[in-house]
Amino acid sequence: MNDNTTGEKIIEVLRKAPKVALFSHVSPDGDCIGSMLAIGLALEKMEKEVTYYNPNSVPSYLTFLPGASRITQAIPNPQPETLMFIDCTDLQRVNLTMSDILEDSTVLNLDHHVSNQFFGHFNWVDAQASACGELALILIKQLGVEIDMDMAINLYTAIVTDTGCFQYSNTTSQTHRLSAELLDKGLDLASIHHNIYDQKSLAQIKLLQCALSGMEIHAEGQLAIMTLSLDEFDKCGAEQELSEGLVNHARSIAGVEVAVLLKEVGPQEIKGGLRSNLWFNVNEIAAQFGGGGHKRAAGCTLRIPMAEAKQSMITVIEEALKIGRNH
Amino acid sequence: MNDNTTGEKIIEVLRKAPKVALFSHVSPDGDCIGSMLAIGLALEKMEKEVTYYNPNSVPSYLTFLPGASRITQAIPNPQPETLMFIDCTDLQRVNLTMSDILEDSTVLNLDHHVSNQFFGHFNWVDAQASACGELALILIKQLGVEIDMDMAINLYTAIVTDTGCFQYSNTTSQTHRLSAELLDKGLDLASIHHNIYDQKSLAQIKLLQCALSGMEIHAEGQLAIMTLSLDEFDKCGAEQELSEGLVNHARSIAGVEVAVLLKEVGPQEIKGGLRSNLWFNVNEIAAQFGGGGHKRAAGCTLRIPMAEAKQSMITVIEEALKIGRNH
Repeated sequence: MNDNTTGEKIIEVLRKAPKVALFSHVSPDGDCIGSMLAIGLALEKMEKEVTYYNPNSVPSYLTFLPGASRITQAIPNPQPETLMFIDCTDLQRVNLTMSDILEDSTVLNLDHHVSNQFFGHFNWVDAQASACGELALILIKQLGVEIDMDMAINLYTAIVTDTGCFQYSNTTSQTHRLSAELLDKGLDLASIHHNIYDQKSLAQIKLLQCALSGMEIHAEGQLAIMTLSLDEFDKCGAEQELSEGLVNHARSIAGVEVAVLLKEVGPQEIKGGLRSNLWFNVNEIAAQFGGGGHKRAAGCTLRIPMAEAKQSMITVIEEALKIGRNH
Repeated sequence: MNDNTTGEKIIEVLRKAPKVALFSHVSPDGDCIGSMLAIGLALEKMEKEVTYYNPNSVPSYLTFLPGASRITQAIPNPQPETLMFIDCTDLQRVNLTMSDILEDSTVLNLDHHVSNQFFGHFNWVDAQASACGELALILIKQLGVEIDMDMAINLYTAIVTDTGCFQYSNTTSQTHRLSAELLDKGLDLASIHHNIYDQKSLAQIKLLQCALSGMEIHAEGQLAIMTLSLDEFDKCGAEQELSEGLVNHARSIAGVEVAVLLKEVGPQEIKGGLRSNLWFNVNEIAAQFGGGGHKRAAGCTLRIPMAEAKQSMITVIEEALKIGRNH
């Protein structure tokens, strides 16, 4: 069951299947939704009956995707024989377990995560792909379906959202070559990018304003630190998750190597998000506060008042910046 | 003198020239600097003597480009026979006139602006190219020089900066295919993007905070308007040009169709920058105030106090939004 077959077997199964149930992961993003829709639309062109499942509703910034209204939060009943999981490392990503899957099912697994669990009968896992959208495009071509505009919009969105507009280091020359094929279909780039990126809520903008107004610079410009209190979230009418990405505004200041956002999530409960640019290991700092992550992005929770948390963070990072370069 | 030869003749001239003087335009950007450096480095590989001219100093966010230190603000003296202008619509873009050019010179003109004046003896002008960097890459390959890492960094930067990371509608499938070739050289995308984009000044961030704090939403969420007074520029320690791009923060709010930034540049002198997203013609609005531009981006100057300017702008845009959809 855990063989990493290439697409051949998956193509064969899909060709034969009269009905296919597609599944994509919780907290859906542009890659899983766009890839699922493109594959589904291609299978529909092959006259198959297709269902599109996601545990959550489609985020508003993705509702423009052709076919998005086909996605439901109901597991198909009756379950068809062929089930295809897209962009999912394991069944938990779809809030399912093996017992939810009928015994005579054929499970197909298309993914690009290095941590994929090879849970399918047939697994096409390519961790070199920047997005599942790359694999979906190759799959559709191998199915012999011509990419139409609707599929192209979905696939391009999948790639663009998972690569941060081709900026992240997962972007490869293949990413660009496949995107070129999609642009050849005549995509309206301005409209796609507007739909994806120009969807900030007013609360999010207010939160940014709030975070910037309290930003402090330390360590001769190398450290930028921002804080958001519960009161401030409240004042902005913002949920906690709207602070996502705010720390990058601090990180993008010239000369800043380390950026921190401390947000109050409860009484004496401060979540710290840390980012670095070129050399500083924020994972080591987060670890000192019982957290962790990666060299350039890490997080931790401090169970002390905000003022104290901020001062501790500044002290520890200033010290590490001083000795860091000499390592 | 005004023939639009393809690259052939330009290649021939460059091959024969022992010395080449390269020129790029005032207010230099990533495209003109990156393209000039890549071409120059290629010519150096061909053992030619190359000079690199720009009327201004290289902006700090571009000083990481390999070869950037070669660029001078001194016109080469003596002038070599072969002069090549890169990304320039006309000689004025380099602060030169025909009288500055020796009579027996051969002037080469490589550009991608539709408004190019064909001022060279040989002109390679391709308005389909998203960036001059695309043409520079093709030129270097035609010269028979293998693209090395230094050239690739310059060419990629040229393309990325002129296409807004492949987001602008000037991006074509060729843009992606050429970028794929550059990525094949092993570019460090994270480092390049950090160098280009994470260079905001603290004053710029303060200005953003200031503009957001005074932002108003009108017309049931369709209009977002921001103002910046002379006092506020002063308080942030920011020059006028640092407000560049701020209006996009207002434009990127979900539901906003028109975004305006009004900035005070002198007593009773208000500059308005207008942007729209999908259908609203801001050119018509700017024209009502004696300005102009394009459908999605326009500007004007109002010689009245800020409060008055703001109210006029809101009134006129609200009215146009009401009737606009019915056109």
